[in-house]
Amino acid sequence: MLLDNVKTPADVKKLNIKQLNALADEIRERVIDVVDKNGGHLASNLGVAEIIVALYYCFDFPKDKLIFDVGHQCYAHKILSGRNDRFDTIRKEGGLSGFPDPSESVFDAFGAGHAGNSISACLGYCSARDYLKEDYYVIDVVGDASLFNGENLEAATTNEKKPKKFIVILNDNGMSISKNNNGLYKIMSTVTTKKSYGRFMDFFSRTIGNSFIGRGLKAFKRWIKRSINGLSVIDSLGFKYVGIFYGNKIGELIRILNNVKNSDRGVILHLKTVKGKGLADAEEHADFYHGVGKNLKASECTFSEAVGKILTEEARKNEKLTAICAAMKDGTGLKTFAEEFPERFFDAGIAEEHAVTFAAGQAMGGLKPVVCVYSTFLQRAYDQIMQDVCIQNLPVIFMVDRAGVVGSDGVTHQGLFDLSYLRMLPNMKVFAPKDVAELEDIFNYCLKISSPCAIRFPNGSHGLYPEHTPINERLWEYSGEIEENVILCVGARTLETAHKAQELTDKKTIVVNCRSVKPLDEDFLRKLDGKNVITVEENVLSGGFGSAVAEFFAENKIETKLKILAFPDCFVKHAETQVQLEKAGITPENIVANLI
Amino acid sequence: MLLDNVKTPADVKKLNIKQLNALADEIRERVIDVVDKNGGHLASNLGVAEIIVALYYCFDFPKDKLIFDVGHQCYAHKILSGRNDRFDTIRKEGGLSGFPDPSESVFDAFGAGHAGNSISACLGYCSARDYLKEDYYVIDVVGDASLFNGENLEAATTNEKKPKKFIVILNDNGMSISKNNNGLYKIMSTVTTKKSYGRFMDFFSRTIGNSFIGRGLKAFKRWIKRSINGLSVIDSLGFKYVGIFYGNKIGELIRILNNVKNSDRGVILHLKTVKGKGLADAEEHADFYHGVGKNLKASECTFSEAVGKILTEEARKNEKLTAICAAMKDGTGLKTFAEEFPERFFDAGIAEEHAVTFAAGQAMGGLKPVVCVYSTFLQRAYDQIMQDVCIQNLPVIFMVDRAGVVGSDGVTHQGLFDLSYLRMLPNMKVFAPKDVAELEDIFNYCLKISSPCAIRFPNGSHGLYPEHTPINERLWEYSGEIEENVILCVGARTLETAHKAQELTDKKTIVVNCRSVKPLDEDFLRKLDGKNVITVEENVLSGGFGSAVAEFFAENKIETKLKILAFPDCFVKHAETQVQLEKAGITPENIVANLI
Repeated sequence: MLLDNVKTPADVKKLNIKQLNALADEIRERVIDVVDKNGGHLASNLGVAEIIVALYYCFDFPKDKLIFDVGHQCYAHKILSGRNDRFDTIRKEGGLSGFPDPSESVFDAFGAGHAGNSISACLGYCSARDYLKEDYYVIDVVGDASLFNGENLEAATTNEKKPKKFIVILNDNGMSISKNNNGLYKIMSTVTTKKSYGRFMDFFSRTIGNSFIGRGLKAFKRWIKRSINGLSVIDSLGFKYVGIFYGNKIGELIRILNNVKNSDRGVILHLKTVKGKGLADAEEHADFYHGVGKNLKASECTFSEAVGKILTEEARKNEKLTAICAAMKDGTGLKTFAEEFPERFFDAGIAEEHAVTFAAGQAMGGLKPVVCVYSTFLQRAYDQIMQDVCIQNLPVIFMVDRAGVVGSDGVTHQGLFDLSYLRMLPNMKVFAPKDVAELEDIFNYCLKISSPCAIRFPNGSHGLYPEHTPINERLWEYSGEIEENVILCVGARTLETAHKAQELTDKKTIVVNCRSVKPLDEDFLRKLDGKNVITVEENVLSGGFGSAVAEFFAENKIETKLKILAFPDCFVKHAETQVQLEKAGITPENIVANLI
Repeated sequence: MLLDNVKTPADVKKLNIKQLNALADEIRERVIDVVDKNGGHLASNLGVAEIIVALYYCFDFPKDKLIFDVGHQCYAHKILSGRNDRFDTIRKEGGLSGFPDPSESVFDAFGAGHAGNSISACLGYCSARDYLKEDYYVIDVVGDASLFNGENLEAATTNEKKPKKFIVILNDNGMSISKNNNGLYKIMSTVTTKKSYGRFMDFFSRTIGNSFIGRGLKAFKRWIKRSINGLSVIDSLGFKYVGIFYGNKIGELIRILNNVKNSDRGVILHLKTVKGKGLADAEEHADFYHGVGKNLKASECTFSEAVGKILTEEARKNEKLTAICAAMKDGTGLKTFAEEFPERFFDAGIAEEHAVTFAAGQAMGGLKPVVCVYSTFLQRAYDQIMQDVCIQNLPVIFMVDRAGVVGSDGVTHQGLFDLSYLRMLPNMKVFAPKDVAELEDIFNYCLKISSPCAIRFPNGSHGLYPEHTPINERLWEYSGEIEENVILCVGARTLETAHKAQELTDKKTIVVNCRSVKPLDEDFLRKLDGKNVITVEENVLSGGFGSAVAEFFAENKIETKLKILAFPDCFVKHAETQVQLEKAGITPENIVANLI
């Protein structure tokens, strides 16, 4: 195995082209092997292996800075930067993160988890480097969908001439997470379908590229390129555009990288790769395999799948219902909906801001939009939710997926803030169902409310309760008398935890399903004077559900003992979901410890 | 006066071109007159008058939808849509809003206050219209800076062919709020400098445009246009690009609008206007006059001005200090800094997301960036603050200007959420100085902290206290013993209010300057067992400072009476600052009423 002898980046430089290609294959095998055990991002990491190997051959990391957009393409980088011996700990507690993390390694030049930040980060780096008169390359590896996120577009268009020693590698596997639906991308990718152009380029490079005629032809080549794909705009933005080349041929990559190194300004190097290369199954179903659980098996019935079913059924009855996602059709359960109602399904691409305002526009125009986005990604549209939806009090429903801890995806993907950032918005209502049946009931309830509503739920499969009280009868659900100890729970997992706590104790307790976080069930809360109240939520303590209860008690001069079980003021790293909950003290034992 | 007889949009259609031009002049006079009394956005509203008159002539509002980006260009629209008789109430309590507001008039098709949302909103409208088989035009008036905000870029690039009966009017006054610093914009505007092209276009249109030769020349014209300004990308994105024309000639505007009405897809109509037209002083200093207070006078010493001085002085000593703003150089007080340190001043344009991540990149690269953004606009970068700055725990300082209520700018511009959305972020520290001297002390304190810090302060001028305790000695400032009543205040205005309350009562009180909102002064809070605590803040109650205090008391089993004086769960409309505070109960009298 070559990989056994590649301990440092310097070792990569000792290999010849044939060995480098073999190294890329070994990296792919290693990735497949570990992702099979640990879960993680598979397809994108397989396609990018040659690019990373070539970068390590041509550049000096960590002196040069390698930055990833989104960051889930970083596995080969981790393997080559001295972390191969720990690579099988990836996404596990105490092990490597599934994303770049500067606190993990000096080779991770910038943290990444959400799309679209890399060009801004690189420009910041270049700005510091040039002002401090330092000398290093800044290299950005960005996928074809992330490149067109609004923030990257802001960064690309903001300054005129891009600094030199700045190379944006567009890793174009033609996919994004789902199918790429971006106009600019379509323009850029047309050239790949023009085979004659590619053949001309190859012929041109190999034969007369440097002759007298060649220099004349170069101008012609540029003209062709601009004419057929409108790429002159990229040149005009201050980038030098170089492409399109195959990204899975290391020899060619090294030649090109060495060529663009000395450009007098920033370069966009457009490379075509095969997402899921080396795994036949993944090549065919790259979307499904974007992020996979352990043993490459899909999980069973989840809240996301329920969302898909509920929306599809509702759409059959309600002609005005639309569904909007941001490059997460499968992840948010909308595949069937999209197939049955293509004219009412909208994938905004990795553009959460646009997705939310687009929904607001649809609502203004008389439709009933449902926006399906993960909790962590919805953060990107915080301002749009406030300004475009809440201020105008529009009946947009948000399906907030992956709320709470997300396990091995880790720090950048935790859905631990949405109760706080949604609850503070006037006009917004916030719900958290205990199971998929209650999800449907709450969704139907939201359909009748002419205000913004958010329904948050965790990832994974959860139990189905035998029955529930419809939410239009009572905001919070509970049975029996109010006891000395009142446990207020938000969402499926905390409710389960509280029920387990009840089994561990003889103390008198009542467990309440606080499925409506905003509004609170004020009638119920007013009855709690003198009680011992414990709130349990998968959200940061700051501004969350327990905080809302504390505010209400203060406002209404209700004197209780109050214990808030929530996530403390620090970011939560990758680990098993159960471990993340235990570390935050969201356990049956800790609930019992707070009973009186 | 023509305006006296223009009561409804239908009345505009009865006028001839000469009268329409006169109407635009009358509108300008009316705007100058009212802005002189009420304050408001002047320059942009003067330049756009002819465009609005022409739109009212050519379209049928409110059946057709007129949407503004940012919205501060909407004054002429308000005057022509039956609101002229109330126009002198603009920005006043109970009067017209300074921005479009659907709850104010059916003519305001979509609310706006922050830049960049209009193309998304229009596409949402078009989507609803086409699906519901309705028939109306959707017209977007967008400024040259807002067009290149990330969200508009997402919307422009997301779908391929833009729907018909959708017209984006690019009102290009070549300014943005400050100087336009956008690469795409520079490409688009090059054409205006090529006079020969303009002359050719004029000649072409007037003479041979429809002849046989003309049709051939049309292709040539398109080729010229694409060659010289790279605009083919706009065509390729699915828009039909039409421009550049003068936007202050109504006859020509009507001809063009009637032409583009029947385009088979969405149109970008690029119009050049003169910002501040009709007011010599404003034409020269359009930036200063972007938003003006009453009587067109600048205010005296403000927190923003202090920021500029402090940063400039620090930059003289500290070579690594940089300042970053988002199209608000003057508003955030950075004019002098930019002049003295042009290489360390960065205006990101209306691109708050890019600004924040760019700062994170600079910090990673070894610089010390200070990001100066208004509280309301910083919301746009909430996710970047979390993901790029806080997760990586980077020493970026945020100067959060216009925090608290902002008076007549109203609902979209209130800085009433930052304590909540910043406080919940791990690693972030949040401060609120009582005066400009304390601002400097806190800034110096933040310079020594290697974590993200936010310093929030209100608009306007405020008193200067004779002395203060340095924050490195004690987090919160107070003198004397802890009394029965403890008033915890955040920021200059609430502190002033609390001191007035003290003067109104004989009850024993202590007023505390809680200049550090995060971390809290826990040592002090632990001493409050059994006390009557009143918190006062200019922020929503939900998740704010009082909420943090309530959380701390619950966590630490400190039993107090707690009253949180903060803004209730609704949006705050335009009015005098004082009125907004009174309505929220942030008054000396209400503090006194809560004493025991």
